[in-house]
Amino acid sequence: MSDITWLDGGVTAVPGVLAGGVAAGIKPSGRKDLSLIYSTTPARAAAVFTSNQVKGAPVLVSMDHVRGGIAQAIVANAGCANVCTGEQGLKDAREMTRLTGELLKIPPKHVLIAATGVIGVTLPMDKIRAALPKLVKSLSPKGGRAAAEAIMTTDTRPKEAALRCEVNGRPVTIGGIAKGVAMLEPHLATMFCFIVTDAVIARDTLGAVTRQVVGRSFNRVTVDGDQSTSDTVAVLANGLADNAPLETGGRGMRPFVRALDALAGKLARMLVADGEGATKLIAVTVRGAASRRDALAAARSVANSPLVKTAINGMDPNWGRIMMALGKSPARIDQDKVAISFNDETLAERGMLRDGVRLERVREIMGGTEYTIAIDLGLGRGEETVWTCDLSEEYVRLNSKYTT
Amino acid sequence: MSDITWLDGGVTAVPGVLAGGVAAGIKPSGRKDLSLIYSTTPARAAAVFTSNQVKGAPVLVSMDHVRGGIAQAIVANAGCANVCTGEQGLKDAREMTRLTGELLKIPPKHVLIAATGVIGVTLPMDKIRAALPKLVKSLSPKGGRAAAEAIMTTDTRPKEAALRCEVNGRPVTIGGIAKGVAMLEPHLATMFCFIVTDAVIARDTLGAVTRQVVGRSFNRVTVDGDQSTSDTVAVLANGLADNAPLETGGRGMRPFVRALDALAGKLARMLVADGEGATKLIAVTVRGAASRRDALAAARSVANSPLVKTAINGMDPNWGRIMMALGKSPARIDQDKVAISFNDETLAERGMLRDGVRLERVREIMGGTEYTIAIDLGLGRGEETVWTCDLSEEYVRLNSKYTT
Repeated sequence: MSDITWLDGGVTAVPGVLAGGVAAGIKPSGRKDLSLIYSTTPARAAAVFTSNQVKGAPVLVSMDHVRGGIAQAIVANAGCANVCTGEQGLKDAREMTRLTGELLKIPPKHVLIAATGVIGVTLPMDKIRAALPKLVKSLSPKGGRAAAEAIMTTDTRPKEAALRCEVNGRPVTIGGIAKGVAMLEPHLATMFCFIVTDAVIARDTLGAVTRQVVGRSFNRVTVDGDQSTSDTVAVLANGLADNAPLETGGRGMRPFVRALDALAGKLARMLVADGEGATKLIAVTVRGAASRRDALAAARSVANSPLVKTAINGMDPNWGRIMMALGKSPARIDQDKVAISFNDETLAERGMLRDGVRLERVREIMGGTEYTIAIDLGLGRGEETVWTCDLSEEYVRLNSKYTT
Repeated sequence: MSDITWLDGGVTAVPGVLAGGVAAGIKPSGRKDLSLIYSTTPARAAAVFTSNQVKGAPVLVSMDHVRGGIAQAIVANAGCANVCTGEQGLKDAREMTRLTGELLKIPPKHVLIAATGVIGVTLPMDKIRAALPKLVKSLSPKGGRAAAEAIMTTDTRPKEAALRCEVNGRPVTIGGIAKGVAMLEPHLATMFCFIVTDAVIARDTLGAVTRQVVGRSFNRVTVDGDQSTSDTVAVLANGLADNAPLETGGRGMRPFVRALDALAGKLARMLVADGEGATKLIAVTVRGAASRRDALAAARSVANSPLVKTAINGMDPNWGRIMMALGKSPARIDQDKVAISFNDETLAERGMLRDGVRLERVREIMGGTEYTIAIDLGLGRGEETVWTCDLSEEYVRLNSKYTT
């Protein structure tokens, strides 16, 4: 990682990228709710969308547009997801890309679109039509934060990250913004992540790298096991770094992928740490599984268990619930071989409470805001990590009154 | 159902059945925590246990004992689950069946055992040894309620039900007690249900009927999607009704199975209604699915979604979350064909908000303590119902501090 330098800011840390965000009046609160990222030159584009069978109109339109492999702008709104809105929803999403394209003087097909918020309600298009010219005027090389703010829903803070790495002797910058605090997991859920880079990269390579990196970052975090109808990770690469083109298996790929992994992983953990009502960020690491697939299944089962997550919230070393969650997972478990540690303190061995365990030390670790639950299944060499947060009364409070 | 007469009480409504419950000091609260059901004559026995790979010592011992097909007593404790306790746990569970058998003058193999409570801690055997003679002395034909109370953990009320039906011209009585308020779903989770009947029934038939009835009752309810390591449904049939023996495919099976379904279904719904922090009992019915399997998968996805369950708690007609939960399920969904109703009020049609929907009426229905969410997928003839409850702040409060 020594070749990565973290930078301030997010998308606008990348050369040739402008961004902005305005309040269009979609959110009743009057906060920023319309966001735009713009590359001054056409960029290679790749994206990964929700695997939910119910997909929002913006997802369907972006799936169509990204097929061309080129994009220059991403327009996104918060406050209304434009999902379950039928033909009208598709018409509205297409109109938004058309208007944005006209204002930026680029083809509508080069505009990707995303929306998050309430499902089942159509967009207030009058407000959006009125706000789009202001949004385009707000574009600036310092606008990354405004763009990150304008995609927030119940997020308590904007999420942005940027870094510089070296690819084939040239400096390459990668920046991103993200949102999403519930319905995270697995396979993208009510989350956006928009990443831009100035790297030169071949079209198929960008698509493949995007899918891999998403698999290792956003598909390894969980807040509540629900899965949104609007999730979108999009990556634009405008090529201004002028590096020797990156191609699958070619020179420079390893440092670039490592940097993209670091950026996406950082943004993913920012999402979990800001999970609705979350007070703790927990890494659940399973090793010693019969296979890597088993390790992931076991880690997900623990990371998603409401009873484990409430115990984390209550700082209660109730390791029996971890055993329960392991036992109900599809992974092979031999209860007499399981060991469970919190950071460096081993709580259970051979499926039983460890003699001489320092429960006070475990409680101290659980009092922190970040720690690791390390599970050894004692069966093989499979290892995986999933990031999760606690389940708090605040999560319920937030979600019981969301539309009203 | 006209041939079923509901009776007061639970297990002791059945001829030849005594029960009792005492406080052995396992629960720190000093409440009843040791429960016994006893048939004065040997009974056919069948049982279904948790499918969690991590199983408590009492489950392992009962699995062994029930293999013989005969039982006369069920001893159960609350406050300590005797799970993840290794060899000592098995020794303790066996000793409990041995001591109970000696006191009742029946073979230890004819005693089934169950335990619920904290995982990872061994039983306070001194207290249990001291309490068992008192427990046996407490046995009475009116002791069903005490037995139901002594298996409670965070249950707010004991659950018992009994009914009389007619089988081949003879009156047959069935009674049961149950406990369980979290980790319900699917395939039994931290729940017990002990059913007794005076029916005469063939051994293999009792096993088959028990599995079927559990599949239609306890495996159709959900509180939090977690799954316990101790769950047990046991059925004893002592034959005192003297009916012509019930055999698979034979005379009298239909009314008997219908009665057993009614009893188990009633107890299962009592569990959900008393789910930890629950304020509402919701039937999620999916019809029009491509298959029955799809209907069940779709209903379970909705019934388990934390976002749906918090919306139910907040009385918020956020039907988009139901669409989300359907879309993420393994069932085939065509979003343009989905209709969603709350009782008699249709909220969504063809995947969109219905024109002229009376949202006030939906809010009124959601204000009640029991209602049905009816989903029509518009694809086929598959239909299934799952029972669930809301997710409240109280659930989190209860579970964040359970062991401490």
